[in-house]
Amino acid sequence: MASVNRVPGGVTAAKGYRAASCAAGIKYKGRTDMALLVSDVPAAAAAVFTSNVMKAAPVIWDRNNITSCGKVQAVVVNSGIANACTGEEGLESCRRSAEAVSAALGIPAEYVAVGSTGVIGMPLPDDRIINGINMMIPALSDSIEAGTAAARAIMTTDTVKKEFAYSFVTSDGKTVTVGGMSKGSGMIHPNMCTMLCYVTTDMAIDRALIDEALHGAVDSSFNMITVDGDTSTNDTLILMANGLAGNKEVTEKDSDYDLFREALGLLTTDLAKLMARDGEGATKRIEMRVLGADTLAHAKVLAKSVVGSNLTKAMIFGKDANCGRVLCALGYSGIEFDPAKVDLWFVDPAGDRKLLLYTGGKFTGYDEEDAVTYMEGEEVVMACDMHMGEASAVAWGCDLTYDYVKINADYRS
Amino acid sequence: MASVNRVPGGVTAAKGYRAASCAAGIKYKGRTDMALLVSDVPAAAAAVFTSNVMKAAPVIWDRNNITSCGKVQAVVVNSGIANACTGEEGLESCRRSAEAVSAALGIPAEYVAVGSTGVIGMPLPDDRIINGINMMIPALSDSIEAGTAAARAIMTTDTVKKEFAYSFVTSDGKTVTVGGMSKGSGMIHPNMCTMLCYVTTDMAIDRALIDEALHGAVDSSFNMITVDGDTSTNDTLILMANGLAGNKEVTEKDSDYDLFREALGLLTTDLAKLMARDGEGATKRIEMRVLGADTLAHAKVLAKSVVGSNLTKAMIFGKDANCGRVLCALGYSGIEFDPAKVDLWFVDPAGDRKLLLYTGGKFTGYDEEDAVTYMEGEEVVMACDMHMGEASAVAWGCDLTYDYVKINADYRS
Repeated sequence: MASVNRVPGGVTAAKGYRAASCAAGIKYKGRTDMALLVSDVPAAAAAVFTSNVMKAAPVIWDRNNITSCGKVQAVVVNSGIANACTGEEGLESCRRSAEAVSAALGIPAEYVAVGSTGVIGMPLPDDRIINGINMMIPALSDSIEAGTAAARAIMTTDTVKKEFAYSFVTSDGKTVTVGGMSKGSGMIHPNMCTMLCYVTTDMAIDRALIDEALHGAVDSSFNMITVDGDTSTNDTLILMANGLAGNKEVTEKDSDYDLFREALGLLTTDLAKLMARDGEGATKRIEMRVLGADTLAHAKVLAKSVVGSNLTKAMIFGKDANCGRVLCALGYSGIEFDPAKVDLWFVDPAGDRKLLLYTGGKFTGYDEEDAVTYMEGEEVVMACDMHMGEASAVAWGCDLTYDYVKINADYRS
Repeated sequence: MASVNRVPGGVTAAKGYRAASCAAGIKYKGRTDMALLVSDVPAAAAAVFTSNVMKAAPVIWDRNNITSCGKVQAVVVNSGIANACTGEEGLESCRRSAEAVSAALGIPAEYVAVGSTGVIGMPLPDDRIINGINMMIPALSDSIEAGTAAARAIMTTDTVKKEFAYSFVTSDGKTVTVGGMSKGSGMIHPNMCTMLCYVTTDMAIDRALIDEALHGAVDSSFNMITVDGDTSTNDTLILMANGLAGNKEVTEKDSDYDLFREALGLLTTDLAKLMARDGEGATKRIEMRVLGADTLAHAKVLAKSVVGSNLTKAMIFGKDANCGRVLCALGYSGIEFDPAKVDLWFVDPAGDRKLLLYTGGKFTGYDEEDAVTYMEGEEVVMACDMHMGEASAVAWGCDLTYDYVKINADYRS
């Protein structure tokens, strides 16, 4: 039976991808802060960018090029300065970075994507960026370790590197791998440190199909996490497919396409959940499952309203079983429902019901000790059944802690 | 020239209103936690309630009665338990409270509004509520001090009592007063402690006119503040007009109506700004003025997006002049604009421009010391000009602090 399996590594797990990283001194000292990712051949590319009107220069650069030529062969990223709110000069910095990579590798500058994350409003130090590129070119490697080092180099306030990979065998017997790395926290509601995500695959697959698969995967993964409700100027997700697995090119929605979608879905959900858990200052991951909503869109809004509620987030940090806040967050989501029909539980990660909190329009008189004990885990999973229909959705977030305030009150010092 | 002047007091400033308060032991010990407000005669009433689908029992009770009979003569409030998510029993508690007041004063139970704020999901201790009512009835007084004591009794995590009053002289020479008290933080985005607000006037004025005036005042005051983006189950604002000033009843939009609207606007803005400043754990009030937007609705959304941004709020708490976060919050508001046209300043409370931060698509290279110095005040006022049109709006909020997390992680202990 065809199946998709987790394999080691991230962006270098698929064939024909090399990575490097370096300490270019853009902002941090004593740690790597630049990464370079290169495909041996031009790769078909799909991308999703921030919905923020204030788009950072690299977003404008990448979007223009990917829209017009549909290919990416290299990505260069710095994790010190966002290059946002930098006007025409910011775009010039992107061009200089891309041209440096282009010249060194002998590829078109339009095939070089640029990623930035960090402080807004400061100009990029072009000389350090160019130095960094020159350091990384000779160090490019297709090893798993090189991919992992790149995943570390793009971190800002992240506390863990984020990379996963999955593989499967196509109908013509070729092994295809889909791997990726990311940093930050989310596409709709990322914190200011920005979500950057780069996914590589060696599958030969039509560009329109990867575009459709990517949007589907994002809608149920990155778009379902929230850390603080702020949407960054720099959010970028690029998917590259270089075809080096040697499979017959996928051009329609066949069983190979389904396997690719499954692998991409698992990968993006893994990355999204890890980003939610690693939200700034977070001690716990929060998962909200909404069942029995009338439409998928409503299920998503309800689930995100709960994980986005500061009061719910603070409650879970404090292990204070003031679960009315969860009902309250459902209630102000903007979705109409009948409060008397809602059931709310704590569940375990497998979805099994552990403690019924609310039913029939009121709380159940559950034992508060039980609720506090439940919230002591690193993962707090809640489920509600709206009893309106068949639609369901899951959203992920994290608790609101003293450290969130500390990190963001004093980000640049 | 006709004018509106600030006068002492709150809900008892207008003629024919008496107030009392008591320590009923609903939740707190050693402080007052119930208030009673009574008009000598039935008053025409207008009201605004929470938009949350999960409406607390008192909201259902008040809304039904005010909609059907249009009159309020008494309001009884407790500040210990919200009586939300309490099902049919919660409504029965409202009925018992109203009937106790009704019996003691000899007025219809339908004329008794009930307000609650505090913990969600717990049943009301009816016996203590009734005891409290019995204590307050003989203590009712029309003194300014009785009104002030009521304003204190409805507080929860509020750190200051909130009451103001204004008066003016009508075209037929009668002095009219409009006074009010409130607690909590906002109508659209209040914290869980709920916004309750009671406004009294002695003007003789048609009920449809006070309804229209109230909605207009709320739109530019309570609906323009945010503390944490959560909308309570209990938010309630009731305006009572008992006609005892003796003016000829206002039945159309004449100059007397304009004076009333002006007084009501000043009163609600004063209360709203004080609630924003007194947001849980706040050390500073944040004011965002949006100028030059294309429509009023867009100006409001832009202004609220900034004061609602956790990252902007944490930045101002930390006096970290990372002002890109303000631009970022404008950018994700959902409103389209041209980033290259936006100007952003720190301004003083009078609106005078103090420090230009951003113009022409990038930061100005302002002196960070100047920005930090500016943010040391208790009030941080920013203004942006979108250069799209003539519409403007002002929103108010507060900074995000360690104490916000502390209060909400451990609310009930």
